[in-house]
Amino acid sequence: MTLKRLLTWRAKTKNFRGVKLITEYIEAALGRAKYEIIEDEEPYYGEIPELEGVWANGKTLEECRHNLAEVIDGWLVVRLKRGLPIPPIGEHRVEELKRLEV
Amino acid sequence: MTLKRLLTWRAKTKNFRGVKLITEYIEAALGRAKYEIIEDEEPYYGEIPELEGVWANGKTLEECRHNLAEVIDGWLVVRLKRGLPIPPIGEHRVEELKRLEV
Amino acid sequence: MTLKRLLTWRAKTKNFRGVKLITEYIEAALGRAKYEIIEDEEPYYGEIPELEGVWANGKTLEECRHNLAEVIDGWLVVRLKRGLPIPPIGEHRVEELKRLEV
Amino acid sequence: MTLKRLLTWRAKTKNFRGVKLITEYIEAALGRAKYEIIEDEEPYYGEIPELEGVWANGKTLEECRHNLAEVIDGWLVVRLKRGLPIPPIGEHRVEELKRLEV
Repeated sequence: MTLKRLLTWRAKTKNFRGVKLITEYIEAALGRAKYEIIEDEEPYYGEIPELEGVWANGKTLEECRHNLAEVIDGWLVVRLKRGLPIPPIGEHRVEELKRLEV
Repeated sequence: MTLKRLLTWRAKTKNFRGVKLITEYIEAALGRAKYEIIEDEEPYYGEIPELEGVWANGKTLEECRHNLAEVIDGWLVVRLKRGLPIPPIGEHRVEELKRLEV
Repeated sequence: MTLKRLLTWRAKTKNFRGVKLITEYIEAALGRAKYEIIEDEEPYYGEIPELEGVWANGKTLEECRHNLAEVIDGWLVVRLKRGLPIPPIGEHRVEELKRLEV
Repeated sequence: MTLKRLLTWRAKTKNFRGVKLITEYIEAALGRAKYEIIEDEEPYYGEIPELEGVWANGKTLEECRHNLAEVIDGWLVVRLKRGLPIPPIGEHRVEELKRLEV
């Protein structure tokens, strides 16, 4: 633990304490999921209405939920890396906090 | 659920099924955390040795862990948005899967 | 942390490490849930075929799942307290491990 | 779904809707955990102060938390099956609801 690290990340981390940006976004998104039973060999279908194109299905509802969590997660990586907008889910946003720029 | 969505995300999601990229990375990182007791008003200190500059402290060990989870999370947002490298944690990587490019 | 505690629970906990009996049973039960749509003001209906009488419904599939998780949970309390048998779900059993008798 | 089941469990489940007795108790107990770093080959030690004799340790804090969750879980099975008292954790109690007696 060098002084340099103390000076840099200390300043930064103080600012976003209290917010697990990505983790809470994923949980909030899953909480908005709408599930249906469709005619398919994997009949449980779930989507996040706020997130265009984010959906999954599965042979059981649990499998569908699990797959949907994976899709949200991978979708976030793509959106973040490409600088594409990430719609807010309620009050949850995944943004580089401006205050972090020390 | 339009056909277009079926054709685009269906193709994509099939490819990264089985991997919660970000969620598993954060869990793996927390699993590598090293904690110690330092002289400080928040004496519990934890860091992820593999992730330079990622550390946190707290008044209790559990508070320290909570803060560390937040730091990893916010650190990932910054790294992803800026296109900075994200060191692998064991086998866990946060990368836009090449196979996703359909 | 007294020596007595070390001698008693230490011996015991060593034996069931690796098994979250109740938590894993509930998860396994939810994984077996069968859902269907019925004519009802709460049309989503789910049951655990292995567990006689364990079912729930809801206005949405996700509400139904939530209610079903609650029913399994409360059902377990009743079965455990009354010493009634708890059917295995796959390999998952909720039993006082014999090895715990030190 | 027979009428009998409707008459029995319907009556019962209506009463404890909204409470995942065991699941919420375990989560609440974990939230009360106090962790320390001790001199041991598994140096992370955690206990639930309200639950006499419930403790665990591990080589990492994550492992310690995982083990502690298992201990709480197995401890609950023993307490329930033997009819031993289960101390409340905040407002969380694991009791067969009186209202369930139909």
